Amino acid sequence: MKKLINDPRAVVAESVEGFGLAHADLVTVHPEPLFITRRDAPVQGKVGLVSGGGSGHEPLHAGFVGRGMLDAAVPGAMFTSPTPDQIVPATTAVDGGAGVLHIVKNYTGDVLNFETAAELAEAEGIAVRSVLVNDDVAVEDSLYTAGRRGVGGTVLVERIAGAAAERGDDLDAVAALAQRVVDGVRSMGVALAACTVPHAGVPSFELPEDEIEIGIGIHGEPGRHRIPLEDADTITRRLLEPISADLGLASGDRVIVLVNGMGGTPASELYIVHRALTRLLDGLGVRIERALVGNYITALEMQGASLTVLRVDDEMLELWDSPVHTAALRWGA
Amino acid sequence: MKKLINDPRAVVAESVEGFGLAHADLVTVHPEPLFITRRDAPVQGKVGLVSGGGSGHEPLHAGFVGRGMLDAAVPGAMFTSPTPDQIVPATTAVDGGAGVLHIVKNYTGDVLNFETAAELAEAEGIAVRSVLVNDDVAVEDSLYTAGRRGVGGTVLVERIAGAAAERGDDLDAVAALAQRVVDGVRSMGVALAACTVPHAGVPSFELPEDEIEIGIGIHGEPGRHRIPLEDADTITRRLLEPISADLGLASGDRVIVLVNGMGGTPASELYIVHRALTRLLDGLGVRIERALVGNYITALEMQGASLTVLRVDDEMLELWDSPVHTAALRWGA
Repeated sequence: MKKLINDPRAVVAESVEGFGLAHADLVTVHPEPLFITRRDAPVQGKVGLVSGGGSGHEPLHAGFVGRGMLDAAVPGAMFTSPTPDQIVPATTAVDGGAGVLHIVKNYTGDVLNFETAAELAEAEGIAVRSVLVNDDVAVEDSLYTAGRRGVGGTVLVERIAGAAAERGDDLDAVAALAQRVVDGVRSMGVALAACTVPHAGVPSFELPEDEIEIGIGIHGEPGRHRIPLEDADTITRRLLEPISADLGLASGDRVIVLVNGMGGTPASELYIVHRALTRLLDGLGVRIERALVGNYITALEMQGASLTVLRVDDEMLELWDSPVHTAALRWGA
Repeated sequence: MKKLINDPRAVVAESVEGFGLAHADLVTVHPEPLFITRRDAPVQGKVGLVSGGGSGHEPLHAGFVGRGMLDAAVPGAMFTSPTPDQIVPATTAVDGGAGVLHIVKNYTGDVLNFETAAELAEAEGIAVRSVLVNDDVAVEDSLYTAGRRGVGGTVLVERIAGAAAERGDDLDAVAALAQRVVDGVRSMGVALAACTVPHAGVPSFELPEDEIEIGIGIHGEPGRHRIPLEDADTITRRLLEPISADLGLASGDRVIVLVNGMGGTPASELYIVHRALTRLLDGLGVRIERALVGNYITALEMQGASLTVLRVDDEMLELWDSPVHTAALRWGA
């Protein structure tokens, strides 16, 4: 294992410290227990948004803390859920009196720990709602989940719900909108090569030199099947088809797409996938209204990519386009 | 070789096409000969900025085309200089009557082809100046260069000169400022693992499992020496020391830093390097005014990182902070 790290067990703490140093204009790092808030938290009268999960998926979630997106991110150990003793103070820190929305990716540990934290925060008098992101169409149930896994759709939920909170929607409205995004978003990924968790020291799985795994999870959990390596256009079609079928995509639909890199795949390859995706959606009569192409939810240095498609309406697009100031997503004044 | 591509020889064309589709609000792709311009080019009365070089370093250069940075990017084949028949029409396309600055990384092919293109464009009546970026302190002369290589400093030259052009500086002033950035910027990189050029099909070099290469170039050219793998704090010190010595960094200096990923290194590791860099510069009494941490000038999926340090003054900082709207660097209204 070759990594630019010091102590394998200090990766999360040192990385988050470096993140806080690089983005001190946007965020504050709370070291013990570990969580990250936007610098001006709590924003009085605004619904607070908290997300979190295992580390190793950067920029998710800390890279999305800031105006127009998350108020707090709670990083767990590598590929391991954060604990209630982190989630509760993060929730308290961003409550501006209008309540807090927890955005939770559907993994067993995350679900349990966010549920516990929500109960504890409510006992402290904070109104908490939760939305569960489960956009991965690859598999029902898996190594870490009952039901579908939460993957790239999380980025879109955080952005659009964050924009709604920023414009002043109340807690029920922000939660309802976040659920509407969850209902309209689907994803699927592919791995070409595995990643290595620092404290484990060996790759999380093995792929033969001539095979890829369709439907991979962001922790290297098994997907649908292993197949021989194919060209990018064919792989893109294999990823889009189950998304399209599950969403019931039809001519005239409008979508936001995310072509996401898993961490070790160069931008040039992601843009080749985006080219293929554009052609396929054109063929379906589906209009790409906005596109993100890059590393937004990764699995350390895994080689591979995922597609996320969200069916949108005018309100979602307007929220999407509103200002966002985070380390990993930024536009508008 | 496992890559998300179709025909290995079509990687650049298909990738740039995908880039144009994803960022149609910012850029226009001119396919034959291949170059990319900002969507509103030429901007009348503004100095035009053109850069380019071999592909495989994305987001450099196309990712930096847009308001406040480059007017055009000219991508060559993978790790291969673009040709004058691309550079000349790119230069013509962005000339708004105030002349054009070529920003050239110091590689033999780039230097020759940009020189030829400048002569041809001047013969067409366009005023052209050139600035040569040669910030890599690792080696004098190398596989592709006479003198020092141009690496991460290019990103900072493009941003600051682009901001000067945007505020209305004339050609001589923009060229002089670009040169001032070149004079004040130094870089050095490290590789943990090599990359594979698609049409070559095999890694560009081999590194044993327990060794890293200090002073690596962005095409995998040899650096200073191979050493056993060390921890991130030690490696960061090894990269900073020659930069600091060459720049003559002293207490009270103010800098912009770029902690750059080579393509296959996760963000968490880059932030650990940034943490180490911050501590080292603190120890020198040097103040980090702004920081970029991420993949800005890559070598396909190479694992590794580079440090870039630019000594700045108030004018450079003001230009740095002015609005920039590109695919890979964006802030301000």
